[in-house]
Amino acid sequence: MKKIITISRECGSGGRRIGKLLAEKLGYSYYDKELIDRVAKESGLAKEFVEEQGEHITGSLLFNIASNMTYAGMVFGGNMLPLQDQLFVVQSDIIKDIANKENCVIVGRCADFILKDYPDSLHVFIHADMALKAERAVTEYGFAKDDVEKTLRKRDKARANHYKYYTDYEWGRAQNYDMTLNSGTFGVEGCVELLYKIAKGE
Amino acid sequence: MKKIITISRECGSGGRRIGKLLAEKLGYSYYDKELIDRVAKESGLAKEFVEEQGEHITGSLLFNIASNMTYAGMVFGGNMLPLQDQLFVVQSDIIKDIANKENCVIVGRCADFILKDYPDSLHVFIHADMALKAERAVTEYGFAKDDVEKTLRKRDKARANHYKYYTDYEWGRAQNYDMTLNSGTFGVEGCVELLYKIAKGE
Repeated sequence: MKKIITISRECGSGGRRIGKLLAEKLGYSYYDKELIDRVAKESGLAKEFVEEQGEHITGSLLFNIASNMTYAGMVFGGNMLPLQDQLFVVQSDIIKDIANKENCVIVGRCADFILKDYPDSLHVFIHADMALKAERAVTEYGFAKDDVEKTLRKRDKARANHYKYYTDYEWGRAQNYDMTLNSGTFGVEGCVELLYKIAKGE
Repeated sequence: MKKIITISRECGSGGRRIGKLLAEKLGYSYYDKELIDRVAKESGLAKEFVEEQGEHITGSLLFNIASNMTYAGMVFGGNMLPLQDQLFVVQSDIIKDIANKENCVIVGRCADFILKDYPDSLHVFIHADMALKAERAVTEYGFAKDDVEKTLRKRDKARANHYKYYTDYEWGRAQNYDMTLNSGTFGVEGCVELLYKIAKGE
């Protein structure tokens, strides 16, 4: 039986919805935005910062981090971590704390890497073809239709940057995960059913 | 129901064995080394060349292809394909011919890319952690223990080069496949069982 399930997902793939439905079906705790409140509270960082920077690094932010690190290193002798790194440390500790205490489904935030060697864990990546992701993003999340593909690519790029920066692995590389699924092939319900059976050992 | 299943696999992951057992369980034709005889016969190329160059490009071969292409372009006005490319064309045609005629499991040889848009197809990538692959390679395939990890990395690199050259995608990138599986997580039998159920629509 799998007690800890992490879901990494392309934006628009339905991965978050799969995680939510899977947690309900299994009777497990579900952590996605739920994590943000706790991380904000324990880190003292603003919720908006935690939400946006907890799993994204844009090109300009990457530059800022590099600058901050040099600055921090110069001024404080390297003892002060840039805010983004402080956030990662607090977030990682909270994710480990949750995994130690309860059966759970955790979406995003490098949880697959942070909990890689935890027993009874299953690490899943969900993706889909661009046309399907774009349709879902417009109809379900209300993204502007005109530049939806560009927006999706940009968000995934920021997730990939974040993942690479903190794990040194390529986001979406099959070898990072126990299993990856194309939600277009199996459907959202199909993915939930498949993962439920695997979690239950059926 | 899935009628065509392609299996791409890291060397030592057990992917070939999974494909073979899955084909038997489903009562499907199985193509791996079986493909080589047919490709050799229809292309007029030597079996050894087909076996080795049908899904591998080493660094030196990549250099040779580049040289050959320039040479062919200069001498024959670009009308003559290098041998490796002729092999890819014949092999692709045979793979499509098989897929058009029978339910099958095909291992390797960019079959996932060649049959990407075929109806009722399922494209799978199998990987495993290095320690497990190394153990399997030594005990089951008789690889020399001393440099087994280096040998496995070299073979996978040659497969990745080949895949990149002919498909322009990264080998092992989750998005190429309907599903990827860590054979260490599920076991060889577990992967067969899982894929069998999916193929049967259970």
